[in-house]
Amino acid sequence: MEIKKQSSYFRKNVDKMTGYIPGEQPQDGLYIKLNTNENPYAPSPKVIAALKGEIDERLRLYPDPVSTSTRKKVAEVFGTKPERVMVGNGSDDLLTIIIRSFVSKDDKVVYPYPTYLLYKTLAEIQNAKECIIDFCEDYSLPDEILVKGAAVTFICNPNSPSGTMIPVEKISEIAGKIDGIIVVDEAYADFADDNCLRLVDKHPNLIVLRTLSKSYSLAGMRLGFAVAQKELINGMMKVKDSYNVDRLSAASAVAALDDQETFRQNVSRITKTRERLTSSLTELGFFVYPSQTNFVMIKCKDSYETGEIYRKLKERKILVRYIGQPRLDDCLRITIGTDKEIDTLLKELADIQLVLLNQNS
Amino acid sequence: MEIKKQSSYFRKNVDKMTGYIPGEQPQDGLYIKLNTNENPYAPSPKVIAALKGEIDERLRLYPDPVSTSTRKKVAEVFGTKPERVMVGNGSDDLLTIIIRSFVSKDDKVVYPYPTYLLYKTLAEIQNAKECIIDFCEDYSLPDEILVKGAAVTFICNPNSPSGTMIPVEKISEIAGKIDGIIVVDEAYADFADDNCLRLVDKHPNLIVLRTLSKSYSLAGMRLGFAVAQKELINGMMKVKDSYNVDRLSAASAVAALDDQETFRQNVSRITKTRERLTSSLTELGFFVYPSQTNFVMIKCKDSYETGEIYRKLKERKILVRYIGQPRLDDCLRITIGTDKEIDTLLKELADIQLVLLNQNS
Repeated sequence: MEIKKQSSYFRKNVDKMTGYIPGEQPQDGLYIKLNTNENPYAPSPKVIAALKGEIDERLRLYPDPVSTSTRKKVAEVFGTKPERVMVGNGSDDLLTIIIRSFVSKDDKVVYPYPTYLLYKTLAEIQNAKECIIDFCEDYSLPDEILVKGAAVTFICNPNSPSGTMIPVEKISEIAGKIDGIIVVDEAYADFADDNCLRLVDKHPNLIVLRTLSKSYSLAGMRLGFAVAQKELINGMMKVKDSYNVDRLSAASAVAALDDQETFRQNVSRITKTRERLTSSLTELGFFVYPSQTNFVMIKCKDSYETGEIYRKLKERKILVRYIGQPRLDDCLRITIGTDKEIDTLLKELADIQLVLLNQNS
Repeated sequence: MEIKKQSSYFRKNVDKMTGYIPGEQPQDGLYIKLNTNENPYAPSPKVIAALKGEIDERLRLYPDPVSTSTRKKVAEVFGTKPERVMVGNGSDDLLTIIIRSFVSKDDKVVYPYPTYLLYKTLAEIQNAKECIIDFCEDYSLPDEILVKGAAVTFICNPNSPSGTMIPVEKISEIAGKIDGIIVVDEAYADFADDNCLRLVDKHPNLIVLRTLSKSYSLAGMRLGFAVAQKELINGMMKVKDSYNVDRLSAASAVAALDDQETFRQNVSRITKTRERLTSSLTELGFFVYPSQTNFVMIKCKDSYETGEIYRKLKERKILVRYIGQPRLDDCLRITIGTDKEIDTLLKELADIQLVLLNQNS
């Protein structure tokens, strides 16, 4: 028999893709991490207590395959019904379930550019036809986002990496006009002035995604949820792995959602720091995109300066996100840290600006 | 614009499938659960201690996207290299990654019948062409398992629900002759006399799957791993969700694997109970398939008796698995519980046999 080359076992579309590369995750704890939009504050003490109460002999048993208690709690907090909620192993799991539910080979997957990179990766894995629509200069959405015959349109709102937000009325208008499913990925919505949850009633093709990674300080637990009309949730349930959410993640979600006070406090601290950081960065001469998230995107003078700032910050043990793709090569995305972390960042940034000035003179 | 019917948003193949239905998971704790192959013994005390040590402020941070410490520990315990290991959110996650990596629409997916039902579900979601090969009467594999042009062949070994095992030499022979990828799903291999891990060196198309759900008593934590040559692992890494394994699952896996003594003790207790249960069931007149797993499959007189036994056991708060599909309608799958649970089962079974005898006379 002919010996096959090993790489040929993979599907062609998988072979040629590079895969999504997450932000740096140094495991040594020595950096001020402002690169992956984690929450700088600890999760609720109720989460810690709930988890400690769950760690016992019951870990030998499978979790509830339909995450009943988590869905009930989500429904209660967000004013919807459990049958309109689906829970995932992070919202990435839900994005994967969505693409496998609604997108066949060569179907059109639409998303604006630049945005969360995973939509591209998922479309590539599914061998879909990507329709990538450039955001307008001010990160509003052009009418081209309405693509005829689109199977799924992804809109990260507020958007990453820009931090900007499309008004809810505009999303509703798009949902009403669009072919296929519209996914509004609201990973950052808790830091915004508005959100699209109220649109679910009106639009049978709308799926709103949320995560506990950012606003509830639980990135380490992987818990996301989708809100959509029952018919969509029921179909997507067939596609998810049976036990996609483990016992401890489910318990942490219930406890986190139960403590709205800690949540509100942390979100309020972060948005306050965001406003201060925005002012200070503007004073330092950067253009700061108006942010509705727990990060800001800044525009530097040019791509050279951007790379230099990224590297020099890293030397000084501060990680920010340098995406370095077209249209973003002069931009940096900076997560909102604690006030102390942001003070350090601002001090080092000012110092790096001086160093760069001296280099050039 | 024409209003689309909601169900039509789904892919046709997804719309028409029923989805995998996991075994009953009553959340009330009132049953003797012998239906989903959970381990009756608690996980290692080291797991409990490790988890308690992990529950703190760090939950706000993303987990290591490539699960470095878990892969190292797997490599150490199983005598392989970390680059040959991939970790998943249960081995179901790995099965999903495999089908998305290697199977395009209309590609052939091969598996014997009857076996783990998820292979069918995954093939349906991927819109693959299923080639279902009947096991021989004695649950050996016929030569028809070698399907020309197969993209992926799944072999659950030891097999569920039969409990039977294909010899490792036979698997090696198949791996050498087969087209495409062969997945040996060794969820139950820790309860068997042999396993296929040593074949990974020899076969560039082989992926061996393991889980900590059964032998390490961690079904609630969702931790599985794949062992394969580096080229396969590297490609599959592109397809997995970036943060598919959460912080606590990763920590529980390292601690569980680190405590080989508890593991061996529990496995040995279970296999001892399995032998006793096998003898007793045989004495009660059932045919018991030779098991290399933590469950046994028995053959009853007919499908009527099988359904009656299942129902009457459930009334008596004992759950066993009644699959009720072709060729299995006179079979029950019974998980090995504690000795006390198995004593209760045997007592109730004997009693139910008397009841059924009186009904018929």
